[in-house]
Formats: sequence, C-alpha cells, structure tokens
Amino acid sequence: MNEILITMGENAKKAETVLRNLSTGVKDSALLKAAEYLLQDEEKILAANAVDVEKGRENGMPESLVDRLRLNHSRILGMADGIRQVASLQDPVGEVLSMKKRPNGLVIGQKRVPLGVVGMIYEARPNVTSDAFALCFKTGNAVILKGGSDAIRSNIAIVAALRKALRDSDVPEDALQLIEDTSRQTTTDFMKCSGFIDVLIPRGGQGLIRSVVENSTVPVIETGTGNCHIFVDETADLDMAARIIMNAKTQRVGVCNACESLLIHEKVKDRFLPVLAQKLSDAHVEVRTDEEGCALMPEAVPAAEEDWGKEYLDYILSLKVVSSVDEAIAHINRYNTGHSEAIITENYSNAQRFLEEVDAAAVYVNASTRFTDGNEFGFGAEIGISTQKLHARGPMGLTALTTTKYIIYGNGQTRPD
Amino acid sequence: MNEILITMGENAKKAETVLRNLSTGVKDSALLKAAEYLLQDEEKILAANAVDVEKGRENGMPESLVDRLRLNHSRILGMADGIRQVASLQDPVGEVLSMKKRPNGLVIGQKRVPLGVVGMIYEARPNVTSDAFALCFKTGNAVILKGGSDAIRSNIAIVAALRKALRDSDVPEDALQLIEDTSRQTTTDFMKCSGFIDVLIPRGGQGLIRSVVENSTVPVIETGTGNCHIFVDETADLDMAARIIMNAKTQRVGVCNACESLLIHEKVKDRFLPVLAQKLSDAHVEVRTDEEGCALMPEAVPAAEEDWGKEYLDYILSLKVVSSVDEAIAHINRYNTGHSEAIITENYSNAQRFLEEVDAAAVYVNASTRFTDGNEFGFGAEIGISTQKLHARGPMGLTALTTTKYIIYGNGQTRPD
Repeated sequence: MNEILITMGENAKKAETVLRNLSTGVKDSALLKAAEYLLQDEEKILAANAVDVEKGRENGMPESLVDRLRLNHSRILGMADGIRQVASLQDPVGEVLSMKKRPNGLVIGQKRVPLGVVGMIYEARPNVTSDAFALCFKTGNAVILKGGSDAIRSNIAIVAALRKALRDSDVPEDALQLIEDTSRQTTTDFMKCSGFIDVLIPRGGQGLIRSVVENSTVPVIETGTGNCHIFVDETADLDMAARIIMNAKTQRVGVCNACESLLIHEKVKDRFLPVLAQKLSDAHVEVRTDEEGCALMPEAVPAAEEDWGKEYLDYILSLKVVSSVDEAIAHINRYNTGHSEAIITENYSNAQRFLEEVDAAAVYVNASTRFTDGNEFGFGAEIGISTQKLHARGPMGLTALTTTKYIIYGNGQTRPD
Repeated sequence: MNEILITMGENAKKAETVLRNLSTGVKDSALLKAAEYLLQDEEKILAANAVDVEKGRENGMPESLVDRLRLNHSRILGMADGIRQVASLQDPVGEVLSMKKRPNGLVIGQKRVPLGVVGMIYEARPNVTSDAFALCFKTGNAVILKGGSDAIRSNIAIVAALRKALRDSDVPEDALQLIEDTSRQTTTDFMKCSGFIDVLIPRGGQGLIRSVVENSTVPVIETGTGNCHIFVDETADLDMAARIIMNAKTQRVGVCNACESLLIHEKVKDRFLPVLAQKLSDAHVEVRTDEEGCALMPEAVPAAEEDWGKEYLDYILSLKVVSSVDEAIAHINRYNTGHSEAIITENYSNAQRFLEEVDAAAVYVNASTRFTDGNEFGFGAEIGISTQKLHARGPMGLTALTTTKYIIYGNGQTRPD
C-alpha cells in the first residue's frame, strides 16, 4: 500500500471524528474565513495558476481546456462567493428524520450524519477544489482531493489558503487534504483505500469515470455522462419544441445536461424538420439522422448505429423519426445514460406515460433538459449529478454527502427467543 | 463476456420495464400465488433438497451448515408465509416524496421508483431464494439470483415453482432468474455485469462479501459483518448490564448483531466481572481479555491484539477494561465494523455522547444489540443489514430496493444565459 495515502487516510479519519460533532456556527465561520483567505492569497494562486497554464500550453493542451484551467480575479471571486453561499445553506447534519416507539418500548430514531471521509477525483478545473471542500466541510466530512496534474500548482495554492483558514478557526486542517502526487499509480492506489474512504466521487470525462467505476473498491457515486433526448410528439407545440431544442442543444454544448439526440414523431416531421434544419444550420449544429430525416434536412448526414449512444458534447445532434410514443420511450431506454430526457407534447396521457416509463434521473414535460442542476433544482449548490441509482440520483446537494444512523433508546430490553 | 449472463441480463431488463409499471394489486396477487405454488411443489422441493443434503454430507459439509441447507415441511411453510407477509406490506413504489414549484414555474417532484435489476449472491440457505424474490418483486425489480452450489438443486426447484406462479399471473417470469452454473468464473463474470445489473447484494460470510466488494463493477450494498460492542459504564445498572450482555452474546451466537466484545468501566470491574464471569461460564462462553480482566475472571484467557477486531460468531467474547467513556468510544470507532453498538449507563451525558460519537449503523442505550433487524425495527421484512454508508445503512426494508427519479412539469421553460 501507498504510505502517503495511508497517512492521509489516518489524518482524515482523525479529523472526521472532530468534524462530525462541530456545530453549524463553527463550520460556517470557518467557511467564511476560508473565503476571505482565498481572496487574500489571490496573488499567490494566480502566480501558481500562470505556471500551470504555461506548462499546459507547452504540453499542447487545447485552448478549450486552457480556458477551464485559467484563473483570474473574477474566477477567484466566484470561488469565494461559492464558499460563502455554502455557508449560508441549511446544515443537514443532525436532523432526525423519524422517531418511533416500538411495542417493546424501544424508541428508534433515524438521524442524518456525515458520510465520514469523501474522496474526490477530478480533472482540470481548479474551482472544483474549493467547491468540493466547502460542500464536504459543511456536511461534517473530511475530504481528500485528487485533482488533475495539469492544475496541480493551482490546487496546492488554493488548498494552502483554505487549510490556513481551518487552522486559524481551530478546526482540524486535515478536513481538507490534497494528494500532490498526481501519478497514475497513486490514483489507482487511491481507488483501493476502502479502509479509509467512505465514498469516492469522480468528476470529469467518461474515461475517468469508467476507470474509477472499474477499479475502485470504495463505493463510488457515478456522475455526469448525459446522452439526453428530446422527443417531439405529434401534438407538440412546434414553436415551443424548437425553442426548447435550440436551448437544450446550443445554450452550452459541453455540459452533461445538453441535448444530444432528438426523436421526432413522423406525423410532424414534414412541418417541423425543415424549420428546425434552418435553425440548427444557423447555429452551426451538424445533424446525423436516418433516411426520413435526411430527406427533409438538406445539410444532414446519415447517422451510424453508434450515433444513437453518443454524448457529443459538441455542435452535433443525432435525430431519428419515430412512429409513436412507445417507440420513443423504447429507444430512449435503450440508448440513454440515465441522465435527463424530455417530451414536448400537449397530450396528457403521453406526458404521463413518458414520466412513468422513461428510466432516467430527471424526466421533463415541455422544458429544456438543461435544468438538471443543483442550483436550478433549488439545492443551492451541487457536488455533481449522479447517473447511478444507488444513494443519490440526479443533482446532488448537501444531503447526498450525508448518511443516516439509527439511534435507539432502551430501558433494558433484550430480544426474546 | 459470458453469453448466458448476457441473455439473462437482457431478459431481466425486458421484464423490468413491465414490472416497473405493475399495479400493487397485480404484484400482490402474483405473490400470493407464488406462496401457494411453493406449497404445492413441496414434494419436489424436498426431494431436490434431500439430494443437496446428501451431496453436502458426502463432501464433508459440517452439520451446522447441513442444518441451514435442510428443508422440511415447516421451513417450506415459513417460506410461503414470508412471501405472504411481503404481499401484505405497503408498496413503496410511486410515492412522490416532495413536489415544489420553482420561481420559473417548473414543478419538480421526486418520486420513488424501482432500482431496476437486482443481483444477489448468497450461500447455503435456500429460504433466501424466496425471500429475495418476494422483496424484489414487491418493489418492481427483476432479480437475478446466484445461490451456493451446495443448494443448487433446492434453488432450481424453488425457482421453478415461483416462476410458474408468475407465468400463471400473466407477469414476466424473468422477474426471477437463477444462475444455474455455480462455477467461480460465472460468479466473477456476474460481478462485472454493470450494463445489466443496477445493484449487487452479497449475503453470506466475510469471504464472500470481501470478494464481491473487491471484484464488482456493479454498485454493491455491503451487508452483514458485525463486531458489535457493549460498553458497561460506571453508572450502569449492573443487573441490566448482565441481562443485556447474556442476551446479546448467547441468544443466537451465529448472527451479525450478536455481541462480540465488551468494554467495562474500571470503576465497576471489581463488582461486575466476577458475577459476569460466572454467568458466561455457565453459558460456556470463552472470555479473551486484558490483564485486569484476567485477574477478575478465573477462566478467562489473555486476548491478543487481533481479538479486538474479531467477529467470532461463536461462544467467545473479547473483554477490555477501560477508564472512561472516551476510551470506550475511541476503541469502538477503531475496531468496529459499523454494525451495532450499545452503552449501558444511567448517565445522561454519556448516553448522549455515545449516541453522537459512535460511528455505526445502530447505536443503543440500555438495550441488546440483537434488535438490529428489519422485523424488530418494524419494516416487516428485510433484504439484509447494510454496514456501508451509501444508499442504505442498517436493516434494509423495501425502500432500500428503490431509488428515486425527478419528474418535472414545464410549460416551455428554457434555461436563460
């Protein structure tokens, strides 16, 4: 086993026993101080980030990734604001969800408690470092972060500022630890730390998430991949459908709740597809479609079987003509990633059936899939969007970082034979 | 990949889309028919079981395991009653846990839905076959069972009766499938079926559970191991303490909520240990303890370091003298398996601290650890006791076999920039 990880795990466990019992007031003050220290250290953080950016460019990092990596004054302000916002949220820890008296007099309550030690593996965006810390700390968890090698200098500087704030708030600074060795071996070792880590949350591309799911012995919350569909039913308000499609596809193409695939009812294809084709063309969206789609959309190209399962994260959209809501639901349940799916319809029964039968974290009637997001759902903040069914599904707010324990008050009860 | 498992997975997925939308009435009738058919097939099941028992004995199976494997009229009655009891429980599927309107007019609800396809790997007890089926079916899940090779003939006969009941109830018989190839390779392949299986629940000994946790790419719910402690505080009612200890240790020694380790406050050791030693001796319980314990318990033997972490599942108990509630809590949090822990005390603050600070699924004041059980907690039935923190913790009733999905009603909302 990796000695450094063992030491970090032991430190996290020690910190966790203190964090678990901190009052909300102490946690919130420490968070406000963390926001303040982050701003105080802005110069150091930007200097470290500049080196990361320079090295990234030297290594041929694409400009889109350089942009995600780069910090500036407004991004550091945003990180500090994010921490302050988490401080203002309600603390879910300690709530007793139910308490009942059993016939034998035992009083059994179920209480919300921290998960313990959270591990997080993520890629280039340094703002995840402060976000993850704030959410885990607010919920009384210790967190061990493993960021991308491209952002290591930025992350070290950010973590230094945050840990100083913890020290000066008299709370264990090991509430937040960063793995500075970004080698592949250490990452793999980290996934095997089931003795120390209660849950591992990967955030990043499909490759990273697959690798964590396949290698981890720690329970994982799978996040992110979204092959999201919009089905335009025969009774759809077609203006609304076009508005929603353009929003879901083009408002931000690189995000997991963007639309990747359209299903169009055959009864509206003649009226709808030429209009839609023009709008998509104006927005530089490439359409990959079946024969019927190609016949009505002059710039479209034929779709291959593999297109139906693809999360493009780009100005590309697959499109299929279907003959019924049944065909639409069956296609979605076959190819989707369990993220977000929408139907555009004025038909009550089809709306209800779509909500019932489509298997996904979020199912919409007459709205854009882009709303699947912790802030849009009213959670105040999110640690990621779960596409698995265990523990948490959909946008994960603070409660996803908690578990429960049963507390039982007795007066001498023993179990009869 | 294993062709048979792929076919079973596809069948389960197909069944699941039907099961998900079955009404409670249809599910309950099918369960009642399953109970009836199980009794009708009693002769066939007992004949198959007799062969399993005979082969087991030939292979040198210990009598305690033979006893768990053996079926008779009353055990088959018990299995049928178990199914009927599940039919009588409330159906958790379809409940909307919350529904709120957002400022933009979106109405967002969170609804309880089946997990999908549940995989279960278990050992010799054939009654788990009908239990697991009933709980999964009631919650609208398809289940794929992998029982032990020792019970394969019994399981085939039980599953045949249950599937016939499904067929005659016009529900998909692939709601229940049994993997008949009990080879190690197939078991390992089963743990890698993340495309088909939404959750894998191992039930059995520590070796089985470890192997599933380490090899599975499917999300796992870890069940079972219990190194449960009882701490006798200085203010304990010592008669109550003795009663609870004897119950928790000896009422049934082979179960996960039995007590395995005692912590005794040094201020009561002189009064309490000689009395307790006699009671434990009368019940043929071996005590492994520290120096102070050995001095007061004539038949006790010295404990080795490894004793503190052991789940004996036998007439053996480790015992340590501690000087404070702090030492007791620290010892428990170091050596426990997160199952069930109890304090015997009349001191209010120590009781509250123990409930707060001990990290386990169930924490008791003045009661036996043996109550950690779905029936005792009032859930009506249980699929296992989770010792992990993700998804479910403690006894798992029907709701542990469900997840949620967000259903969102819009009227044309798009996400603003």
